[in-house]
Amino acid sequence: MAVGLKPIAQLQPVPGIRASGLSARIKKSGKPDLALIELATGSSCAALFTRNAFCAAPVVVARQHLAATSPRLLLINSGNANAGTGELGLQDSRNCCETLAAAAGLTPEQILPFSTGVIGERLPTRRIQEALPELVAELRDDGWNAAAEAIMTTDTLAKGVSHQTQIGSTPITITGITKGSGMIRPDMATLLAFVATDANVTPQVLDECLRHAVARSFNRITVDGDTSTNDACVLIATGRADMPAIEQTNSTEADALRAGLNQVFSELAQAVVRDGEGATKFVTIDVTGAINATDASELAYTVAHSPLVKTALFASDPNWGRILAAVGRAPLQLLLLERVSIHLGSVCIVRNGAVAEDYSEAAGQAVMDQPEITITIDLGVGEYQTRVWTSDLSYDYVKINAEYRS
Amino acid sequence: MAVGLKPIAQLQPVPGIRASGLSARIKKSGKPDLALIELATGSSCAALFTRNAFCAAPVVVARQHLAATSPRLLLINSGNANAGTGELGLQDSRNCCETLAAAAGLTPEQILPFSTGVIGERLPTRRIQEALPELVAELRDDGWNAAAEAIMTTDTLAKGVSHQTQIGSTPITITGITKGSGMIRPDMATLLAFVATDANVTPQVLDECLRHAVARSFNRITVDGDTSTNDACVLIATGRADMPAIEQTNSTEADALRAGLNQVFSELAQAVVRDGEGATKFVTIDVTGAINATDASELAYTVAHSPLVKTALFASDPNWGRILAAVGRAPLQLLLLERVSIHLGSVCIVRNGAVAEDYSEAAGQAVMDQPEITITIDLGVGEYQTRVWTSDLSYDYVKINAEYRS
Repeated sequence: MAVGLKPIAQLQPVPGIRASGLSARIKKSGKPDLALIELATGSSCAALFTRNAFCAAPVVVARQHLAATSPRLLLINSGNANAGTGELGLQDSRNCCETLAAAAGLTPEQILPFSTGVIGERLPTRRIQEALPELVAELRDDGWNAAAEAIMTTDTLAKGVSHQTQIGSTPITITGITKGSGMIRPDMATLLAFVATDANVTPQVLDECLRHAVARSFNRITVDGDTSTNDACVLIATGRADMPAIEQTNSTEADALRAGLNQVFSELAQAVVRDGEGATKFVTIDVTGAINATDASELAYTVAHSPLVKTALFASDPNWGRILAAVGRAPLQLLLLERVSIHLGSVCIVRNGAVAEDYSEAAGQAVMDQPEITITIDLGVGEYQTRVWTSDLSYDYVKINAEYRS
Repeated sequence: MAVGLKPIAQLQPVPGIRASGLSARIKKSGKPDLALIELATGSSCAALFTRNAFCAAPVVVARQHLAATSPRLLLINSGNANAGTGELGLQDSRNCCETLAAAAGLTPEQILPFSTGVIGERLPTRRIQEALPELVAELRDDGWNAAAEAIMTTDTLAKGVSHQTQIGSTPITITGITKGSGMIRPDMATLLAFVATDANVTPQVLDECLRHAVARSFNRITVDGDTSTNDACVLIATGRADMPAIEQTNSTEADALRAGLNQVFSELAQAVVRDGEGATKFVTIDVTGAINATDASELAYTVAHSPLVKTALFASDPNWGRILAAVGRAPLQLLLLERVSIHLGSVCIVRNGAVAEDYSEAAGQAVMDQPEITITIDLGVGEYQTRVWTSDLSYDYVKINAEYRS
């Protein structure tokens, strides 16, 4: 029931990148569950991982490998998170890397593993290892769509975006895929996202571009407030475009790259919320006028996580009292009631801390009936602002998560 | 669908207290919605109110009146919260107090108003004012049950407890009523709770007893994390028991009173969770071994509020990975994974940070199939502990809150 999310288009190849996806029978359904992304020699790679202290085995292994050398292959499975699996889970993840390394003529450290799915079950390594030769043989320039299909879990649609832009006079391509639908309140990155460009950029600038983009995209979304154990976001630059390397973060070339990346990352992050588990509404929460950045963020997430606000959104009920109650309980440094105003779309519902005299239930209802809703809360005490995207809380969210393992 | 909560018994009268309840046609259903509690001259009264910044008009008025003089009447309506109503809401609340004061031969400041129900609609003051003469005429020693019925909103059962104990050789009675089912994560007190005793105790000791009891009861429960705009908890001591006044908080008499009060407050607070909106499970979350009190509390509430943990509880699914993920994302000062152990009932699911070797799905399932479940998380790094009571997240929670105003 994704909100305003279209089926994935054919993604544009990125020079220097090949990808593939197939079923290794990890999922009981027989749907694709194993993906591979190949980086040409000389590519740069930046990555951000979950801050969940109970991070999964592949996150531990990927961090170690990334610190050792430049990656050449990203191996991603869905259907099993390999999290909460202790020392055995680490061995399972390393075994898969070793088998793939032997098949591809690489060292294990040149492979980054990623997993997503059920927590706490052993990874079916034999099935993965048996599927690796075919997965390598299937690598294609236009394999992005197959990879996007193979990393899905409770997603109802595969998610990917391609964007073409220019840096100076050089045309470049940015293509990215992502997955995620529940356990979504990324803290560094969403469940899994892989973005590549053929732009030529130093590792330092690439890393800064990734942090910049994630701060404005994946780190601004929440479905249920539950940060995953497996979040990872990878940004690759193959450098195949005909341009000198971007070496300075404060250059017009870096600005152009950031602008293109931000567009792709925003679209991918919004796609995760639009396909949030059970989502029937896509909700933008804009907080303005906060005394500092922490207050803006705390308020946006307090409203975004309120079960009462989320069920009112599901019911298309302009029950603004629940928004007001959430604002009132947010842990803010400075809240002056008489300065607070709240808009639902363009309809003012609260002005100077009380219901607006010109508010009508009919006007509020008209906004709430839309599938895409913006809630704007102005605190009126400062210059800081933030934007968070979220979804509603529906019967289907409960159904999906009550039946997830059955 | 209350979990392990029986229909309310006949509550014991407290010498010096009379109560009544009836329908003033505030609720469309015609169910009782107006209650009155009368305190005999010379009673002491302590109260705690919500910390929600957008507190309701009656909370503002009650605080002012309490600061001015000793209350003689508590006027409580359900069906309308009189919150988010600005200056008009304050006038409405004061008008009701004035009408009641004239009818009862008191000053308006001797009346404390309380409201609970829908936020953001004007209080139907005329209906309330018209019902006041009958409400006063109906005051009875044994009127507690009628009052308990009249303060309900989405509660499926009225909630009240009586307890008889001794202070020295003097028998005393403690009787309390409460209401609340959703928008429950009290921060000072739950939606509404009124407890009275005939013990003889100074206002200072009474205030300390109230804070002590609330910290161990209403401030340890959560249904949905949404702190109400109207929370209020009142403790009355009429002093009618044949005993000298308790003047010291560190006396055996104060200890005896605290013990009795804690029992009544705990039962009332648990009743709110057992009748939590849509609840099918009553869940105790015990955190032990934390480095400080803040870590213990943050962890307990992070697990209690996790939508994924709550839907797994609803499904009776021993999906312990979700508990582990919630522990991993909790904002703790000190978390050493290898020291963490987690029990479901008496079944160890996580030991030293990974799944216990002797854990079996069948053992976990046996615990999850029960209506009352204890999750124990030991952090193994300190001496602090806490306990929080919560409920699960079911279809009915979504249904109740999606249809609340329809």
